[in-house]
Parts: sequence; C-alpha cells; structure tokens
Amino acid sequence: VSEINKNKIFQFIEDLFPLCRSITGSATRKTLKYIQDYVPIELFSVPSGMQVFDWTVPEEWNISDAFIKDMDGNKIVDFNENNLHVLNYSRSIHETMRLEKLKKHIYTMPEHPEWIPYRTSYYEKNWGFCMRHSNFEQLNEGEYEVKIDSNLESGKLNYGELYIDGESEQEVLFSTYICHPSMCNDNLTGPAILTFLAKNLLEKDELKYNYRFLFIPETIGAITWLSQNEDKIDNIKGGLVATCLGDEGDFTYKKTRSGESYIDKVSLKTLKDLNFDYEVMDFFPWGSDERQYSSPAFQLDMGSIMKTPYGQFPEYHTSADNLEFISSDSLYSSLEAYLKFVKILENDKFLINTNPKCEPNLGDRGLYDKIGAAKDSNKQKHAIFWLLNLSDGSNSLLDIAMLADMDFEYICETAKVLAGKGLLSAKE
Amino acid sequence: VSEINKNKIFQFIEDLFPLCRSITGSATRKTLKYIQDYVPIELFSVPSGMQVFDWTVPEEWNISDAFIKDMDGNKIVDFNENNLHVLNYSRSIHETMRLEKLKKHIYTMPEHPEWIPYRTSYYEKNWGFCMRHSNFEQLNEGEYEVKIDSNLESGKLNYGELYIDGESEQEVLFSTYICHPSMCNDNLTGPAILTFLAKNLLEKDELKYNYRFLFIPETIGAITWLSQNEDKIDNIKGGLVATCLGDEGDFTYKKTRSGESYIDKVSLKTLKDLNFDYEVMDFFPWGSDERQYSSPAFQLDMGSIMKTPYGQFPEYHTSADNLEFISSDSLYSSLEAYLKFVKILENDKFLINTNPKCEPNLGDRGLYDKIGAAKDSNKQKHAIFWLLNLSDGSNSLLDIAMLADMDFEYICETAKVLAGKGLLSAKE
Amino acid sequence: VSEINKNKIFQFIEDLFPLCRSITGSATRKTLKYIQDYVPIELFSVPSGMQVFDWTVPEEWNISDAFIKDMDGNKIVDFNENNLHVLNYSRSIHETMRLEKLKKHIYTMPEHPEWIPYRTSYYEKNWGFCMRHSNFEQLNEGEYEVKIDSNLESGKLNYGELYIDGESEQEVLFSTYICHPSMCNDNLTGPAILTFLAKNLLEKDELKYNYRFLFIPETIGAITWLSQNEDKIDNIKGGLVATCLGDEGDFTYKKTRSGESYIDKVSLKTLKDLNFDYEVMDFFPWGSDERQYSSPAFQLDMGSIMKTPYGQFPEYHTSADNLEFISSDSLYSSLEAYLKFVKILENDKFLINTNPKCEPNLGDRGLYDKIGAAKDSNKQKHAIFWLLNLSDGSNSLLDIAMLADMDFEYICETAKVLAGKGLLSAKE
Repeated sequence: VSEINKNKIFQFIEDLFPLCRSITGSATRKTLKYIQDYVPIELFSVPSGMQVFDWTVPEEWNISDAFIKDMDGNKIVDFNENNLHVLNYSRSIHETMRLEKLKKHIYTMPEHPEWIPYRTSYYEKNWGFCMRHSNFEQLNEGEYEVKIDSNLESGKLNYGELYIDGESEQEVLFSTYICHPSMCNDNLTGPAILTFLAKNLLEKDELKYNYRFLFIPETIGAITWLSQNEDKIDNIKGGLVATCLGDEGDFTYKKTRSGESYIDKVSLKTLKDLNFDYEVMDFFPWGSDERQYSSPAFQLDMGSIMKTPYGQFPEYHTSADNLEFISSDSLYSSLEAYLKFVKILENDKFLINTNPKCEPNLGDRGLYDKIGAAKDSNKQKHAIFWLLNLSDGSNSLLDIAMLADMDFEYICETAKVLAGKGLLSAKE
Repeated sequence: VSEINKNKIFQFIEDLFPLCRSITGSATRKTLKYIQDYVPIELFSVPSGMQVFDWTVPEEWNISDAFIKDMDGNKIVDFNENNLHVLNYSRSIHETMRLEKLKKHIYTMPEHPEWIPYRTSYYEKNWGFCMRHSNFEQLNEGEYEVKIDSNLESGKLNYGELYIDGESEQEVLFSTYICHPSMCNDNLTGPAILTFLAKNLLEKDELKYNYRFLFIPETIGAITWLSQNEDKIDNIKGGLVATCLGDEGDFTYKKTRSGESYIDKVSLKTLKDLNFDYEVMDFFPWGSDERQYSSPAFQLDMGSIMKTPYGQFPEYHTSADNLEFISSDSLYSSLEAYLKFVKILENDKFLINTNPKCEPNLGDRGLYDKIGAAKDSNKQKHAIFWLLNLSDGSNSLLDIAMLADMDFEYICETAKVLAGKGLLSAKE
Repeated sequence: VSEINKNKIFQFIEDLFPLCRSITGSATRKTLKYIQDYVPIELFSVPSGMQVFDWTVPEEWNISDAFIKDMDGNKIVDFNENNLHVLNYSRSIHETMRLEKLKKHIYTMPEHPEWIPYRTSYYEKNWGFCMRHSNFEQLNEGEYEVKIDSNLESGKLNYGELYIDGESEQEVLFSTYICHPSMCNDNLTGPAILTFLAKNLLEKDELKYNYRFLFIPETIGAITWLSQNEDKIDNIKGGLVATCLGDEGDFTYKKTRSGESYIDKVSLKTLKDLNFDYEVMDFFPWGSDERQYSSPAFQLDMGSIMKTPYGQFPEYHTSADNLEFISSDSLYSSLEAYLKFVKILENDKFLINTNPKCEPNLGDRGLYDKIGAAKDSNKQKHAIFWLLNLSDGSNSLLDIAMLADMDFEYICETAKVLAGKGLLSAKE
C-alpha cells in the first residue's frame, strides 16, 4: 500500500458518490461496472419476483428526476442537488397539492436542521421527500407542484462477486453492500476497501485460502446470495462485513456470533499488532449483513472491523455523511487493517518442534550469544523460546504470538529462522 | 397480588406470632392447622423414637407455664410475657434455689441488654431461662422459686406438605420451617410467603411443573422428610428455602451448591428484572435446610431468595425480631420475588426459529417499520432479532433474555408475537 | 525448623561461597561432596563428549589462578580476590599485550561501576576477564601481562541425586543447580534450601510420595539428567525448581507451563496459608531448568517458589549478589515455604462422607454445642460442615480448604476429628 493508493481509495469514493444507488436499478449496475475497472468481479442478476427464502426479489427502481416547486416556479427541493431528497424507491408522482397533504410525505431531522435524512420504502409502494428541517420550516401554506419521475417495474437485482482461488478447500468471505445513494462512511467506504483489498490479493502469487468478495445490496442481496449458494456454506471459514471504514474515529471490532471464533482471534490480533486504538463490541443480531450470515441455519463466523459503527455517529444516514466526513488517511488505515487480517490468516499455521526433548543447542546453530549469563532480555531469544516450547502441535503461530504477547509478524519471522535451521517443521 | 393481600400477609404473621412453637408439640400443630385455613396442606406425623437416617425423632415437647419468682412472690421472668424466656425444650422443674445455682441456667445478651435471646436444647435434657441482661444484672443474691411446667414424652413430630400437580414430571421444591417461637423475620416470614405463593399457584388453571411446599421443623424435619421421600429426589429440579423475608434490608440470593444451576439463573434474573437491589452469596453448607437438601447423597439445587440473611441482622434469634422488625411492604416485595421466580420457571422454554435461513420478512408480517433507514433503536425490533437469531434449539427464552440483557417478560411477550406469526415454534 | 537451623542454612552458603564452581570441574565436585555432609546424595558423572539429546557434554574446566598485571607488576585484576574476575570457562593464556587488544576481552557494568559482572563462555573457546568498571576506566595505555592458568580437557560432568522412597508410585521432583561461582541468591540459596528440605524429609517415618532431589549444573545438567532418565518421566507428578531464595523481597510464584496444575494449586495455597506476601507470574519458557522439564516432549508441571526472581534484582549475576545480599531470616522463610509445600502434598487426599444423606447427628458425637440457636460463627463447626458437604469423592482436602477459604492444616485437623468419629473415610 503506497501513498498513491491512499489517494486512489478516496478517488474511488469520489467517483461513485454522485450515483443514486438503491437495492436495484441502473445506478447500482453502474457502480458494479465501475468496480470492474479495478478488479474482475463477475456480475450476477436475479429477476424481480423470484423467491429467495422468505423474501421476494422486488421490482427494479430507476429515477431520472424529482422536485418540489412552489407556485412561483422555485424549486424548493431538487433531486439533482442531492439524491437523498427522494425517499429511496419512491413511486412516480406528478401532482399539485396543498402543503398540508405534502407534509405527510416529507421527512426531516429537527435535531440537525441543515442535514437531509436518508430514508427508504423498499417494500411498500409510497412516495416521499427528505429535506433540511430549516427549509421545511420556511414552507408557506399553499400549493406545491410535486414531481417524482421514477420507474418501478419488473427487472433485476444485481450483485458482483469475485472469487480468488487458493490452495486450501476453505474460503474466507468479505461482504459489503452497494445500495446506498450519496453517502460515504456508510457505505461507499466498504466497497472501496474491499476493492483495494481484492486488488492486492490478486497480485499475490499464491494464497492459502480461497477468498470470496461480495458486492451486494444489503439484506435482500445477502439473502439472495445465500439462497443461491447454500452448497458453499460449509467451506466458509468465516470472514468480515466491511462498512464504516472512513471516518476519523477509532477502530471498533464487532465480534462474531460465537464471540470466540478464529475470526475473532485474528481480528483482535490484527488491531493489536497495528497499534490501533480500538473497542470491542459483542455480537448483536442487527447492524449489517452479519445478521443474515449468522442466522441459525448458517451461523457463519462473520465479524466486522470498522471505524465508528453505524448508528453511533450523528452523520449516519444523512447528507452529512459526505466526502468531507471521511479522510484518505482513515481509509488507508482501514485498508492496512484488512491487509493485516489477511496476512495473519495466510501465515498462521501449526509447526512442530523437531527437538521436543529439552531445548536444542541454539549456540551451535548461531542462535544464541556465545558469552552468556548477562541479564539481557533479548526479544528474539524470547520468541525462539516461546516457539520451541509451544510448538507441540496444539498451538498455532497465532496462539503462540498471543501467549507470548508478541507481534504475530515477529513470531512468524522467528519461526522462519527456526524452520531454516530445521528446528521447526510443518505439522502433518 | 393486591394491596389487600399485602395486609393479609402481615396478618398471617401477627396471628401466629404468640404461639410457642418448637420442633414438636401442640403449638406447631396449631400453626400447621392455621395454614390450612389458607391452603390445603396435608399433615404428616412421625413418632418419637423413629430412626431417620443418622437421627432419632425426639420426644414431643409441650409447655403450659414457666416463671422465676423472688421470695416476695414477684415474677422476675414470666413465660406468659414472652415465650422466648424459656430455653426451648426445657424439661419441667419446680424448685427453690439460690441465685448462684440459678445463674448457670440463665442466658442473656450483654451486648443487647434489653433483648431476650432465643436458645434451645433439643437433644440434651436440660432446663433454662433466657432473659434481658438488664434484668439479670438487678437480681439480688438469695433464693428464687423456679418453675417450668413442661412435658417431654413420646409423641409425634408434625409437618405439612402441599403438592400442586403440573404437566411435567419434574417438580420444584419450596421449603420453610415452622419451629421457631415468637420471632418474625426468622422465621414466620417464610411460612407466610410460601402460604401466599401456594395460594396463588392453586388459582392457576395449568402449571408446567409440579410444586411441592414443605412446612417442617428445621433440620430434623428436613431430615425426616428426605428419609421418607428418597424416591422423589430424582424428579426435583431444585427450588428455594424460604426464610428471612420481612425486614427492610435489600435482597440477598444465596446460591445453590453447584453455583451455576438453572435455579441460580432463574433466581438472579428474578431479582434483576424486578429491579430490586440485591447481593449474591456463594453457597455455604450451613444456614437453613439447604444443608440437608444439598448433602452429598442428594445434591439438590436449593437456593435462597432472602432479604437480610440469618445471622446478619443483630435482631436475629432475639426478642427484637418481632412484629415491629418486619413490614408489610417488605413482605409484599418478597412475595413478588417468589411469584416472579415461578413465572420465569413456568414460561421459560426452548423455541425454534421456523425460518432459520436468513431473517424472515418482518415487514410483510407487520413487524417492521415500512419507512426504513432511520437510526432508531426500537426495543421490540431488537427483541425480535435476538429471538430469531438465538432460537436455534440451544437457547431457552431465559438464555435469550440474559444474552439480550432484556426483561424475561418482554422477551416472552415478543416470542408470543413471533409464535403468533408462525415464526417461532415449540422445540420437539 | 528451629532457630539453630536458621543459622545453619546461612553457614552452608558461607562455606560454599568461595569455590569457583562451573558446569564441570573440581569445585563443583567439592560442592557436591560438601552437600553429602548433610544428606546422602548419590554422585553421578557423564564423560565429556557424550551426546545428550541435541547437546554434547563439554570438556571439563579447572582453574588455579588468573590475573592482569601492569608493567610495574601490580595486579590490576586478581582471580584470588574474586573468582568472578575470570570469564567462566576461559581457556588458558599467558601473554603480554597492549591495552587495546586486552580491552576486547574485558567485561564490565558501566551502570554499576563497583560491581564485577558474571559472564561465561561454555561452548566457545575464548578467554576474558570481568572487572569493576571504575577500575577499568583507570587503566592506562600500555602493555599488560595477562595470565589465566586454566585447564580445559576431556573429563566429567558431575551431578548429585537423592531419592527418598515413599508409598506411592508417583514422585515429586525438586531441582536446583550447583554451577555458579561466588554468588548467593542466584544460586547457592537453591542448594541450601533443598539440602535442608531433604534432611527434613529423611527424618520422616513415612511419606506418601517419592521425592527426587537433583543438584545439577543448570541447562546441560538438566538435559543430561533427562536424557539418562526418560523412563522416570511418567511417574513424576511435578515439582519445583529452587533458586533465588535468600533475598529480602516478597515471594514470587512462577506457575507451571499449564498454569492450572496441581502443583500450582499446592504452591499458591502454601504461600497463602503462610500469610506471606507474594506475586504470581505466568509461566515463560526461559529462566531456569523448568524450560527443560517443560519442553514439549516432557511437559512436566514444574513451578518455582522464589523470593525475587532472577533478573529482577540489580545484583543478579554480579559480585553484589554476595553474603550481604541474603539473610538467614529470608532463607528460613523459604525453607518454611518448601516444608509447607510438602506438607500439603503429603496430607492432601480424598475422603468420603460416610453419612452422605443429610448431616450426621453431630451433637450425639460431641461435635456440636448442646445449647443451640446462638448466632455464633464457630470456626470448627464451619470446617466440619464444609468437609461433610464436599467430601463426595470429587473434592480433596486441598479443594475443600480452598473452597472454604480456610487453612489447609485446619481442614486436615478437622478431617482427622471427623475420621476419628467414623464420619469420613478414605476414598477407595
């Protein structure tokens, strides 16, 4: 990850920011195609009306314009100014109506009068506008021309998938959603980080695990993918749901459903070794798509490495979650975390001490000071002792790094030295 | 439980207070018969001399009068003023003796000079008086007429039992003792709470568990009951020993022997959900009859929900543990706790999510806001998500309420809503 | 342990202090022979060149003199003044050389300019001197006569072993090292405490466990012993490595590799019951010979009861770890700890309550106050109740003492009383 990439991650988000995405529709397809400029994700679609477990794939929604005009022809609210102004999935309407009636279809945030809220109505035909409360309060009685030029008809639900082949049978799942209109932390940061993570993994010569990246509409997309891929569940070791990765807050790790999975161990060591400040949240069965992946029939170990979690920053689901709210530095540190997460997964393994009876003669192998007895606390010597003592087949390198309270990477490097001397070998 | 009952609990104690109960005798029988005015307990008796495990049922004790008179004929100590004045189980005596001899048979509490201590001598023939230390110090040298008109002869040991039939094979045991003379917190509050609890359960149309209520003399009564009912042990799920339930202190829960039994979970959730302040004590093998029920051969899970525990209030086993020491409000809250304990037991069960693959479509079933994406933290929505996610057959409603940190009752109500929509069903 | 012994322990160290011990050589043999004045340890030897697991037994080292003289004939450094002056295992040399060359063979401690450091070069042929940094800084340019009159040739590695026979098949291992020249806390205190502990055990009429005491050179000695005694490993229940037992600091317990072994329980209860202040350290795979005993193939439960651990006192491995640094009081308390450790091991056992159904009638057996109902908290009564309640075959006396939070010894005494009354019996 270089400084150049740091700006590229931000650029990715900047490019996609204007599109009025939703759980279906052309803007979402454009978003997926844009991602293909970076990594070769495969595009899938399912038709409206298809049954996916307990759900039905909805009609496809597209929108070209929307506004509220006062009787003098002034646009009070304009979709072209900010696509959050339209209740996402609004049916079309073109009508002149009194303020009294119009008000029932307007959503504001009195506690943040200058922000436009983000609201949706996917599964009930409805129409509406979201606007700044300060503007709303200035509306005069009288009539308004209301227009939403949208289209809701049988079509498709689209999602993208990238599968990177590794040696093992097991796969690691990274999932993010691509259904939010012009907002950044939630959620363009998720697709951005996963795109750059995937790009990085594609450049590797070899990988231990298979990696699957999903770019899907939230909820209905995860449900759709799971319904189409039940046969793949057994091979999934677990993974991460990527969201809220660009704000300036500390990291947060939301644990997997079991609370003590391998994914939890890897994630916590990731954040610890990077010396990031972080908080840990126990699993709760809402939030993002981990609630689908962790439902009783699947119980996949899906955690979330995030910055400030959804719902915990005031800008969440408002027009204030914009390009100013995120920073390329924060995105860069998030990518570092996801890369470290993969690095630990890829390098963790069980090694066996080939000289299990007492310690091997380290001095003979050039691994020990020839002049002894000093009260030194040589870090490498300690790493060597931990590795030799714990490599009895029951502790992986990650376990050893945790017990030794040492960086995973340092333990790995030391293990390589010992393996090079024949003192550690792969567990059969 | 209404305000009327609140006074009735106190009245129950007031009525029984004057009787000079012991582990046997007519006052104890009168007490059991008085309880029959409320609930149809069955009376049992075993004869003096019967072997019960390592013990022998003692002779029956009855007393009609007792006093110490000075040579002027003034009653220094009078059984009719307070029955604690007599060493419980004293043999009869009528003798004139010098103070020096008399003193060896007098018990006082120098640290509380105005209180009469409560002392017993069940298993060694003896006689004695308990008196206020302030009076004791005013005794002049000289002779005193000492009379105890009591009777100790072959008779019976009595106890009462109420069995309420439920659907399950398993039973829940509530045990209290009816052997203390005029004292309230220890112990008339125990029989009072269990009587009103039993009355409440008898009014229920159906019960899941069988409930057994024991009103027995402490120690020898529990030993007797266990020796007569060894065949019932296997079906006992556990239960509570009821005592010290009327003082103004906070609640205390004394755990069962295992310290992590189902009874412990139910008891702790009971006190938490009622928002009572409470302390938790680990099990210790003395106290009340839990020490018999939890002996190595039985190891029943018997806890104790109490207010201030025996031995931890200065009035314990003295004349100060009287009607002024307890309050109807405190008794009322204790009854609430016992009712809640039963409510949790009765309503806890394992349910299964009938749509275990992803979450079911809650909006279609009217269980979800149609306008989405707001940062709300709707309590019912969270309860629904917890129930759906955890109802995989390994978590009961109580487990879910604890993991969700929500009221058990609220989880149950929400589970009913979900079951009504066909989303949860009984575990086979 | 009497006051007389207290001085004797110190005398033991005083006598051995002057010898220039190493991992081989005559001074080490003299040390072992001195120990034979106290206890009949058996002396073993293995020849130089012998293969012991991954190691080769080194040549034997002996030294008679060493010095550095300036050109005026003044001895700047004199082995006879302090044997730490010579790099332990130095080859012989007699040469006149310029300061520049000499300096490469001199070790000092700039941070403690008045202390001579202790350094070794067992496995690489080398020569060197250790000196006070204050003296080193006063060395003038010019030439020096350097002489080390030592001898490094094929010989033997010696160690001592004492086996005390007990009834059980299992043995307890106490190991210490005898390879350090003139230093006390590390390490003459270890041989001293184990010698007096062994002396005490030899005086016992009967012992439950077999006890094995090892007086060996550190590292190579432990490796040698293990390589010669692999058949004995299975019977070793665990034990202690004795070192650093004479300074004025608090006690430290370094746990065994598993961190929750029986040895850990016994050690922690030892220090608790003696009311010593102590700290607990988790296991780490360096330090002393526990790192050999706990290597993957053996995984023996070897803990260390110490005062201030090696490396944690500034005087460690310097001339300041001398007779002034230790005290007979501290040595005495260490011996107390080791004796208590054995006492718990020897007396711990599983007893069975012979009256497991309810409590036995204690009053009939004179174990209970005849006048009851007082709020007393009689310690013996509580010990009796704990013993009767927990002696169900799953708790040993040590377990019971820990659960009851009572002195192990008090629980044992009470158990004897109960066994005397037939209320407890040995577990078959």
